[in-house]
Amino acid sequence: MHRTHVKVLEDVLDANGTLARANRADFDRHGVTVVNLMSAPGAGKTTLLERSLRDLDGVRVGVLEGDVQTALDAERIALLDVPVTLINTDPSFGGECHLDANMVRSALPEVPLDELDLLLIENVGNLVCPAEFAVGEDFRVMVSSVTEGEDKPIKYPLMFRTCDLVIVNKIDLLPHLDFKLDRFMRNLDAVHDHVPRLLLSAKTGEGVEEWRRWLVEAATRQPQPV
Amino acid sequence: MHRTHVKVLEDVLDANGTLARANRADFDRHGVTVVNLMSAPGAGKTTLLERSLRDLDGVRVGVLEGDVQTALDAERIALLDVPVTLINTDPSFGGECHLDANMVRSALPEVPLDELDLLLIENVGNLVCPAEFAVGEDFRVMVSSVTEGEDKPIKYPLMFRTCDLVIVNKIDLLPHLDFKLDRFMRNLDAVHDHVPRLLLSAKTGEGVEEWRRWLVEAATRQPQPV
Repeated sequence: MHRTHVKVLEDVLDANGTLARANRADFDRHGVTVVNLMSAPGAGKTTLLERSLRDLDGVRVGVLEGDVQTALDAERIALLDVPVTLINTDPSFGGECHLDANMVRSALPEVPLDELDLLLIENVGNLVCPAEFAVGEDFRVMVSSVTEGEDKPIKYPLMFRTCDLVIVNKIDLLPHLDFKLDRFMRNLDAVHDHVPRLLLSAKTGEGVEEWRRWLVEAATRQPQPV
Repeated sequence: MHRTHVKVLEDVLDANGTLARANRADFDRHGVTVVNLMSAPGAGKTTLLERSLRDLDGVRVGVLEGDVQTALDAERIALLDVPVTLINTDPSFGGECHLDANMVRSALPEVPLDELDLLLIENVGNLVCPAEFAVGEDFRVMVSSVTEGEDKPIKYPLMFRTCDLVIVNKIDLLPHLDFKLDRFMRNLDAVHDHVPRLLLSAKTGEGVEEWRRWLVEAATRQPQPV
């Protein structure tokens, strides 16, 4: 029973990998850098995008929003005058808990790739499955809120291990929490030593300028081999 | 392609339902009330259990811990001198993002059902899939932290719609957040009108006594028909 289950998972991931490479080839052909933004629910991804996407030093940016239901986040982003495309993962029942390469592929006809330098994909809020499904991104960035506790890197290691940047958000709340930042960093090092990290507050804006610089640099970097 | 996918999902859920009823029959035979505790990562489930399970008015309580990886939460609960059984959902790669009835069933031989009145199942931190998989529980309780924002009930409706009690945690942080409690309650009413709700802080202990009374009452209630 277990062996069968694993086999199915491998087939699914294999098909996903093929589609992710097809997406990536399309992104590369248009010269678009793609960032897959992931976090637990409520860690502050949308607020961070609201804070950081205006006037990005001439970088033309678009957003692909993944949500189980509702257009709430997409509507917030649209207020920034940024092209935004919405994927709802809920064709039935509870919905899919992650974006996969095929969902992103099906949305691509709606994304104005030839008008963009940078596409941010805001994944479904979840610390498990989004990390398992590549969507064709150049970079994986995850947002971890200090309200979630110091143990998250070792409890959800795949997410923290496979990302290129960890954003530690809501640092304005540190004085009101028992959260030990050095313990979080040690846990992060234990699963992904030397991964770059940025401390910021999407609410107050502290640290957001460094994230904006990271985005501009990512958008102007040469494409990497897949 | 889509139709096939839905078909597979239905089969999985059907098999899960059969196993959940088998679990429930075992729980009923032993007179054990079972609570399935769900939330996003870091909403405070384990801290709440630490706060609430000691000296529960003669109710004999046990815990079944579900985590992708690590025994961190199980070790915290074991310090309470409460029987605790751990399920790690990570047989390979990123791990399963939820408990299902079969995982719980495979753990039952390790759970001392005849020594318990109440079994708390701490599910994997995730707002999507745990709601899709019954495990044989009498009650579903979800913990929503005020740090996650007011929109979560409408963004993850199945979770909020299928639970019997919503615990609003971390209310000690309200003075430091933009969170509008009345807006959260309106969103909650929109997906699950009149669902009981408890406001508390597992950190300060405010409101926890009411949750302890809810647990004692749940444990002494007559079994409901499945």
